[in-house]
Amino acid sequence: MTLPITPADIRTAARALDGIAVRTPHLSVAALDAAADATVIVKAENMQRTGSFKFRGAYHHAASLPADARGRGIIGASSGNHGQALALAGWLLHAPTTVVIPSDAPRAKAEGAMSLGAQIVTYDRRHDDRDALVVGLANERGLSVIPSANSPHVMAGAGTAALELLTEHPEITTLVVPIGGGGLAAGTAVIAKHLRPGIRIVGVEPSAGADTLASLRAGHRVSLEEVPRTVADGLGHTTPSALPWQVNSLLLDDVVTVADREITFAMGYAFQHLKCVAEPSGAVALAAVLANRLDLDGQTAGVMISGGGVDLPVFHDLTSSAHRNGTPAHA
Amino acid sequence: MTLPITPADIRTAARALDGIAVRTPHLSVAALDAAADATVIVKAENMQRTGSFKFRGAYHHAASLPADARGRGIIGASSGNHGQALALAGWLLHAPTTVVIPSDAPRAKAEGAMSLGAQIVTYDRRHDDRDALVVGLANERGLSVIPSANSPHVMAGAGTAALELLTEHPEITTLVVPIGGGGLAAGTAVIAKHLRPGIRIVGVEPSAGADTLASLRAGHRVSLEEVPRTVADGLGHTTPSALPWQVNSLLLDDVVTVADREITFAMGYAFQHLKCVAEPSGAVALAAVLANRLDLDGQTAGVMISGGGVDLPVFHDLTSSAHRNGTPAHA
Repeated sequence: MTLPITPADIRTAARALDGIAVRTPHLSVAALDAAADATVIVKAENMQRTGSFKFRGAYHHAASLPADARGRGIIGASSGNHGQALALAGWLLHAPTTVVIPSDAPRAKAEGAMSLGAQIVTYDRRHDDRDALVVGLANERGLSVIPSANSPHVMAGAGTAALELLTEHPEITTLVVPIGGGGLAAGTAVIAKHLRPGIRIVGVEPSAGADTLASLRAGHRVSLEEVPRTVADGLGHTTPSALPWQVNSLLLDDVVTVADREITFAMGYAFQHLKCVAEPSGAVALAAVLANRLDLDGQTAGVMISGGGVDLPVFHDLTSSAHRNGTPAHA
Repeated sequence: MTLPITPADIRTAARALDGIAVRTPHLSVAALDAAADATVIVKAENMQRTGSFKFRGAYHHAASLPADARGRGIIGASSGNHGQALALAGWLLHAPTTVVIPSDAPRAKAEGAMSLGAQIVTYDRRHDDRDALVVGLANERGLSVIPSANSPHVMAGAGTAALELLTEHPEITTLVVPIGGGGLAAGTAVIAKHLRPGIRIVGVEPSAGADTLASLRAGHRVSLEEVPRTVADGLGHTTPSALPWQVNSLLLDDVVTVADREITFAMGYAFQHLKCVAEPSGAVALAAVLANRLDLDGQTAGVMISGGGVDLPVFHDLTSSAHRNGTPAHA
C-alpha cells in the first residue's frame, strides 16, 4: 500500500522550515547512559518554538497553502501545543488564525495563542461536537483546517525532527517516540526507515491511553471506550488518527506503555540530569527508557522529548508527588 | 600591562576540549526578545557536562598538567559545580581527584563527586582555613591544585563558551555574564574583545555580593566585610580572584547587580520560556536582562546561563516564593 507521505515530503518540509523552526539540541549525559545501559541521545523538541514539535507540522501545512487560502485564514482545534503552534505559524505567515479550545481549558493556554493574535473560539466539552464546530466555522469563513496529526504536511513537518537527529547521529539504532495522534511517530518512521532500513522505531503511549497498541493488536484501528485519564494529557486519544495509522501500522516495530508515575519520574529526571523541562506527554519516551521498557542493551538510542508545555505550579505538583510516592525500583 | 591569558590561550583550550566538552545550545525565544526589547541569544552552559561551564576550565587545567603530575592527582575546593567538574575531569583523565567541601554542604553535592570516584575531604567552615587545608594536602600528597577561577587554564577554558557563541553569532553586540570568582567573565572578555573589539561586556553580581563592582569603584581589589547572603550561593565571594581581576578591571565595560527576587524570577522565566533549568548563580545574567538593568535597546545580546546545579525541591521552594512575592514590575 502507498503511504500518505514519502521521505521526499519530509525533505521538502525540512527546506520549508529551514531558518524558521529551531534545529533543536541533541543532549546526552553519562548518567542517562548508565541508567539505560545504552548510549542515549535526546532530541529536545521541548526547545522548539512554542515549546513542542507541533510547530514544525503546523507551520509546514500553513506555508504550503495557496496564498489566497492562507489569506482567508487557518483553523484548528487544540487546548495545548498544537494551538500555540498554529498561532505562531499564522502570525509568521500573516494568516488569520482561529483556535478552537474547550471552555474549561486552562486560561494560560488560550492567552498564549491570543498574544500571537489568534482568535479563540470555545466549546463545551460535554455537549458540543468539536470537529463539527471546526468544519462548520471553516466552511462559513473560508478557513483551511490544519489538523494536529491527520495531515500529510503535518506528519512531514513532524518528521523533520528525526531527520535532524539522524543526520547528526547516524549511529542511532533505536528511535523512541511518543504517540498521541500518531503524527510524530509516522513522520519519524518514514524518514528513519528510509535513512536506516534496519533501525528500530518504538512508540510509547501512556498505559491508560494505549489506543495505538490496542489497534496494532487488533490489526485495525480500534477506539478506547473511555477518554483516557492520564497525566499525559496531550496523548489522551481514544483512536489513532487515520493517516498516521496507515504509516504506524506498517512501520512501527513496537509500542510500549508507561504508567503515570513513570512519566512524572522522567520529568524530574530530565530536570535534574538534562537540565530541561519536559511536559508529561513529552516525557513518555524518556520514561520508557528509564523504566527499562525496551531492550536497549549496548545500543544507541534516540529519544524524543516532544514538548515542554507545562506550567511551573503544575510541574511542582507532579514532580513532588513523584517524590512522595517514591521512584521506580530501577532508579 | 600584560594580561594573564591571551586569545590564543582560549583557542588552545577550545582544541583541548573539542569532543570532550559539550558545544552547548544557543537558545532564543520571541518572548524574551520582546521582554528585553532586543535580540537575545542564550548560551546554555547549564547543559554542559556536570551542569555548568566549570567543566571547561577544570578539564583544560587538568589535561594541561604533565603526565606524572596528573598521575599523582588533582585537588580543589568547592561545595558545588567546580567540585563536580573536577571529579569528572579527573575521572576522564585517570587523575586521582580530591574535592574539599564544607562539612555542612548538602550531601547530594558530595555524592555526585564521589560517584565519579573522587575522594571527599570535609572541613569545618567556622574553624578551618580551607585554602591552607588544600595546600597542605596538595604538598603532603603531591597533588596539583586546580582553583575554581584563579588559574590561566581555568580562565581560558571558561572562555571557550564565548568563543562558541560568538563564532556562531558574530552579530552579538553585548555579552552578559555572571561574576563569581571572575574566571568566566575574564575568559569571556579576552576572547570577545579580540573577536569584536567594539563589543560591550557586562558582568552581573548579586547585589548582596558585589565585590567586583566595589573593587572597580575603588580602583583596586577590595573585600566585602561579610560573607554575602544571597540565593546565588556560587557567587558569594568576598573578594575578586587575583588573576581574573587583572582582566576584568581592564576589559569589563560595566558591572550591574540583581536582587535575589530578580534571580528567582529569572529561574522561573527560564523554566517557562526557555524550557531549561538555571540555578540561582547561573541565572543572574538573565535576571539582569529581564530586570532591564542594561540598556539593550535594539541590540543583540548574548546571555550566559552558566549553570543548572539546583535540586528539584530547592528549585520548587525558590520559584514558589518568587510567585508568592510577585514578579518584578516590568514582567
